[in-house]
This record gives sequence, C-alpha cells and structure tokens, in this order.
Amino acid sequence: MSMSISTSDVPAIIASSRFRAAVGVLREQHAQLVEEIVTLTEIPSPPFMEEARALAYEAMFHGLVLEEVGRDGVGNVTGVRRGRGDGRILVVAAHLDTVFPEGTDCTVRREGTKLHGPGVGDDARGLAALLAFVRAMNAADIETDLDLLLVGDVGEEGKGDLRGIRHLFTESAYRDRVGGFFTIDGLETQRVTTAAVGSYRYRVSFRGPGGHSLGDFGVVNPAHAMAAVVRGLSQTEVPTLPRTSYCAAVFGGGSSVNAIPEDVWVEVDLRSESQAELDRLDARLIALVEDAVAEENRRGSTDGGKVAAEASRIGDRPAGRTDPDERIVRAALEAVTAFGFEPRIDASSTDANIPMSLGVPAIRFGSGGTGGRAHSLEEWIDVEPELSIRGLSAALAAILGTAGMHLA
Amino acid sequence: MSMSISTSDVPAIIASSRFRAAVGVLREQHAQLVEEIVTLTEIPSPPFMEEARALAYEAMFHGLVLEEVGRDGVGNVTGVRRGRGDGRILVVAAHLDTVFPEGTDCTVRREGTKLHGPGVGDDARGLAALLAFVRAMNAADIETDLDLLLVGDVGEEGKGDLRGIRHLFTESAYRDRVGGFFTIDGLETQRVTTAAVGSYRYRVSFRGPGGHSLGDFGVVNPAHAMAAVVRGLSQTEVPTLPRTSYCAAVFGGGSSVNAIPEDVWVEVDLRSESQAELDRLDARLIALVEDAVAEENRRGSTDGGKVAAEASRIGDRPAGRTDPDERIVRAALEAVTAFGFEPRIDASSTDANIPMSLGVPAIRFGSGGTGGRAHSLEEWIDVEPELSIRGLSAALAAILGTAGMHLA
Repeated sequence: MSMSISTSDVPAIIASSRFRAAVGVLREQHAQLVEEIVTLTEIPSPPFMEEARALAYEAMFHGLVLEEVGRDGVGNVTGVRRGRGDGRILVVAAHLDTVFPEGTDCTVRREGTKLHGPGVGDDARGLAALLAFVRAMNAADIETDLDLLLVGDVGEEGKGDLRGIRHLFTESAYRDRVGGFFTIDGLETQRVTTAAVGSYRYRVSFRGPGGHSLGDFGVVNPAHAMAAVVRGLSQTEVPTLPRTSYCAAVFGGGSSVNAIPEDVWVEVDLRSESQAELDRLDARLIALVEDAVAEENRRGSTDGGKVAAEASRIGDRPAGRTDPDERIVRAALEAVTAFGFEPRIDASSTDANIPMSLGVPAIRFGSGGTGGRAHSLEEWIDVEPELSIRGLSAALAAILGTAGMHLA
Repeated sequence: MSMSISTSDVPAIIASSRFRAAVGVLREQHAQLVEEIVTLTEIPSPPFMEEARALAYEAMFHGLVLEEVGRDGVGNVTGVRRGRGDGRILVVAAHLDTVFPEGTDCTVRREGTKLHGPGVGDDARGLAALLAFVRAMNAADIETDLDLLLVGDVGEEGKGDLRGIRHLFTESAYRDRVGGFFTIDGLETQRVTTAAVGSYRYRVSFRGPGGHSLGDFGVVNPAHAMAAVVRGLSQTEVPTLPRTSYCAAVFGGGSSVNAIPEDVWVEVDLRSESQAELDRLDARLIALVEDAVAEENRRGSTDGGKVAAEASRIGDRPAGRTDPDERIVRAALEAVTAFGFEPRIDASSTDANIPMSLGVPAIRFGSGGTGGRAHSLEEWIDVEPELSIRGLSAALAAILGTAGMHLA
C-alpha cells in the first residue's frame, strides 16, 4: 500500500511533473484529437438517433484503460477511471447528440487549422477532449482521489430535454455517488457556466366545437381563449435579475378562413435562472389558460360544446446554480486564469442544469479553441494547436483540481 | 312586323300554351339533362382551373340556338338568346367552378335516381339546367322581352372571390345593359335568396425583429400584437340583425419554441348582410391592428426593429339585397308557389352578391330536386323526375316572369 498526498490546489497541480507530462501528451497527441473530432463529427447523431455515434464512442472508450465501459438504459456511453478515494464520483461528460436532423451532410471540410462541419464544436470536440484527457492522465500516471465517470450522453439538445443526464442522476447505478459534474460543452476556455437557466416549454392547445363563421356565429371560439392567454402573458412582469423570460413563439391551427376553428395552438417558452421565478411564471401561465377558457365559455354559446385547453409540457429543464465557493468553481476559475485566460462566469442551459437543480456541484467548461456558427450548417472550429492545447490543459487542471490529484 | 303582347304575369305565363309546351320539353328531355349533369360533373373544375369544363360548356352552347357564344377575358362562357325588347339583358348564370382541388376523383356514381359525385349539385345541375331552359324555350317558340344572357361563370367558390361575375359587371361588353340577374345555384326550389351576405377576408401578418427567447427578452414580439387584435375582435359587439359576424379562423407563424417569432399571422373572416355594418367591422379590425402594433412598439424594445402589420384582403364579397318589390323577387315567389312549394327567403353569399351590391335586381334560385353534402366528397343529388321537373319549371317561370314573355 503506497502513501500519497492528494491535493486540489490548482497551482500545485499545474506545477507538478505528472501534470506537465500530461500536457506534453496533449501536445504530442493533438493530431489524434483532431482526427477523432473529424471521425465523431462525420457520424451523424440527430436528436433521438445518437446510437451510431454512441457505438463508435463506446469502442473508443474500450480502447482506453477504463472500467465498466458500456451504454446505459437511455443510451449514454459510460466508463470509469478509478480513483484512490472512497468511490465518490466526478462526472466528466460531453454530449453525443447534435441539433441536425437525419440526412444532414456531416462531412468535415478542412481549411488550414479550421474544421467546418455541423456539430464539429458542439459537441464533437468535447467528446474527443474526454478521450484526450484519459490518454494524458494514463500516460502521465495521474491518479485522482474521486473516481472519474466519463460520459458521452444523449439528449442534450432541444427536445432531447437533457434526458441523458437526467437518466444518469435518476436511474443509473452511479447516481448516489456523484459528488461533482463537468460538462465539456462549447469551446471558449474563459467562459465558465455556474448557473443553469431553467425552462419549461408548453404546447397549449385550445379546442372547441367549431362551426360556420356566420351560421354559427356566437359559438365559443378557442382562438379567443388563446389570444387572451398570449395577451395576459405579454402583460406579465418578470424580474430582470434573476433573468426571467417568456415567449409566445409558434402558432398554428384552424382549417379554413370561413370556419370557427376547432383547434388552435401556441408554443410557449418560459425561462429563468431561478427555479422559484420559473415556477411562479409557470403557475401564471396555467392560471391564464384556465381563466381564458372560463371567460370564453361564459362569453359564447356552449350548446355545441365548450372550449377546453390542454397545456402539454414539451420541455422541462430545471434551473439551478453552483455556489461560487464550491471547490469545482474555484478550481475552474483558477485553472482558466493559470492558463492565461480572463475567466467569465455565465448562466446557460446545458447538461449541468440537472445536477445543479439537485444540489450537486456542477459547471459547464469549454473544450478549448475557438469557432462559430454553432447550430448552423456553417458551424466551424479552429484547432490551431497552441490555443487548443492551452484550453485542454486548463480543462484538465480544473478536473484534477476538483477530483483531487495525487502528487506522488 | 308581328304584333305581340308581352307579360310578366306568372300565372298567365304558366297557363300559356307555349309555357306548357316548354314544360313538356323539360319532361321529354329530362334524361338528357341527367346525362349532361353527369358529363359536366365528371370534367374536374377546381378553383382557378375551370378551363376544361368551360370548353365543354362552350361547345354545348354552340349546340343551342344562341348568339355571341364565346369565353370572355376571365373565362366565363357566355351566349345570348335574343329577346324582342330594347336590348336590356337578364343574366341567367350558373357557376363552372367547384371547391374540389386538382386530382379529385369526379366520377359520378348512380344509384337509382341518385347521383353521387363532387360538385354534382353545386353547380353542375345548375349548368345543365341552363341548357334545358334554352332547349325548352326554343322548342316551344318562347320569345322574351329582355335578351337572355346565359353564363357559365368562373370563380364563385372560396378564393375565386366571385371573380367571374365581378368581371361580367365591371369589364364585359354587356355590363351596362344588365337589368336583372339570376344565379341558378343550389337545389331546393323553395329557397329564394334575395340578400347577399358580404364578407371581407384578411390575412393579417405581424412582423418583428425576432431573437432569442431569453437573450433578447424584452424585444417587441409580433405575437403580442396579434393576440391584442384577436382579443379586441372577441370583445366587439355586432348586431344580430342585420346578421353580422367575425371569425379569427386560421393561425400560423413562428419558427422555434425558443425564438421570438419574426412573423406570425391570422386569417380573419368578417361578414354582414349589411354593407354598412361590414364596413364598420372592417374599420374596427384595421383600427385594432394599428392600435395593437403601436402598443407593442411602446411596450417592448424596438432597438432591433419595430413590429409592423400588414392586412391583406384575401376575400372581398360585397353585401347587398334586392328589394322584395322588385319584379324579379315577385316573379320568383309566385313561380315557387305556383309549382306547389312553400317559398322561403334567405340571405347567402353567391354570385348574386355582385349585382345586388351594384343595385341590379338579382336573386339566387335553385336548380330543382334535392340532395346533400355539398362541398364534400359525398355530395349527391336526387334527379327523381317529378320533383326535378317541377323545380325546373318553377325556375323557367321565374325567369320568364322577369324577362317578360310574349304570349303569341
């Protein structure tokens, strides 16, 4: 049994010979990282169709020295790098899914150090970064205190509704042992996300008996109830801080200009950095819907049937935040600063929403480098090695400062 | 030069030997009427695509003793049966178009005296009735005082917006000579339409700068303006008599649940039996739109652009009515009664809207027989000869009572 000193002091970690060796590996293997970014980007991974990329990523995990490699019930790829502690876990995740639908051409085009391709930065580079971290730690004999659970997760984008990480924290065998959570998502190293913007998304459908615009005039019209809801929402006061918003976004329904509609609908987005504000806004929307339906049923004739509404929650991302005094935040900020970046804390909606909402210390951290046009077909990243490796090194230092690294 | 006595006395007309001879022809040639209904029904005539049926109908006009047979600039088929008067015209029209889109199977299925087929009653039977009237008058040597202008017109249904008859009254060479107007549309002989329900139809589009639901929160949202318009419309008082109505009917717009929409729209139907009420309602809608846009531009940030609205009139059918003392109404009611029906006056939206709005005495009269499910693929009529011929006879008597018939 060897004795060892574990530290979470980021400057000490960065100064250690093992960490310097790990950075050397990141540098030597940078070309491999780039190849893996390309390989992963070119395996399409549309929402709810992440399996092909997951299988490839699982195979990459098998190629590393990881334990318990596999895919869980929702499709996340997981693998454990055992630490020397008591089995508590630091999750390091990147997401497998993209926003791009089936049939999107995911071929990567190279232009100098720039890679162009849908999803190349969001989040193929994050997935590849996880592999680079493990290889660097392995090559440099780095041991952590916490176990590291590497995760390539499904369902981060849009209607995926964070289902991969939600599953990890509610269903997986690891859920009770997680003491911290990194999602490596997005690029810029300076930006550290410590607050989760929560959102509820609804499709509110209003139904009624319909009828002829003249012959049945006076009959309840579900569009009147919908208009009253959107009108009421537009008159709702919400705080500037914590940032809170609502949006009546997408509309549809009705069959013909000369017919009272039987069915109209609106999709509404509610957001807040505060779960309490989000819940208040949510209650307001539901009250508006109930009041509007009741009012229209009083106003019009209901002989042929009443107006009724159904608010279906099509998105549910909890709000939350990680206390700035948590070790994970301090380690991240120290690492960012140590590698020459000016740290900037922000709020966003990412996989970190789930642990933050559960009180598990969590942050979103960049995978390094620069890029642009995420979520568009013109998405690109620059893998210019100096900045790229500096970003990867900062991320690894942040992870080790959180997990605790054994210096000898 | 022969001397002749012209009468518009319906009982005298019905009692005349020539009219009785004409009814005999309607009876003898009833099977031909049925064949022509089938032939016309089976030539598809979708909105704005009436040409094939128009060509066939024009050929049928050529087979009759009509003058000036041809198609006018908008596609109406016209032919003149010359009277002995001063050249003033009574129009007898039926519409060529159906509500059924291109590709609809228009095959007629026969089941005893029932004919099943889309458009068979609305208005193929009306078109065939015009042919039967001319043949009967020709065979019975009936001469009228007014010239009869037989018309198979385009664009009666939906977005056709009455463009065929609108053209006839605004552009055609006949427009200044028209002294009366029948549209033979619908079936039941007892129902006589003497009032035109007018309608304006709008697609009101609301545009704004759009943006991210959270990041750009506070920016003007065109959906707020739309909701205010529909809300205001729902609170609008309109009279029960003359019947007046509004309907917010069809909705669309917006791109994604997490984006402030750049463009939303609603289609609105406004109707009234009174042009003054229709114009009042129209002014109310436009004022609501202007007020809602101004309000939203005061409420929200317009740094990235303002909300603007455009109300495009997609339908315009003027209201109007024909005085019950007009000869055309009296002749119609007397004819209906004389052939054993209980007349019922109503208001509707038909080709007669145009002449009524211009002060030209006009009615809609049925083509006879019974049926159901008009505007559906299950449309059917019953051509049982007794009722069918009685209805045709009443229509012919109403036409002759309006045009004036020479008794010898």
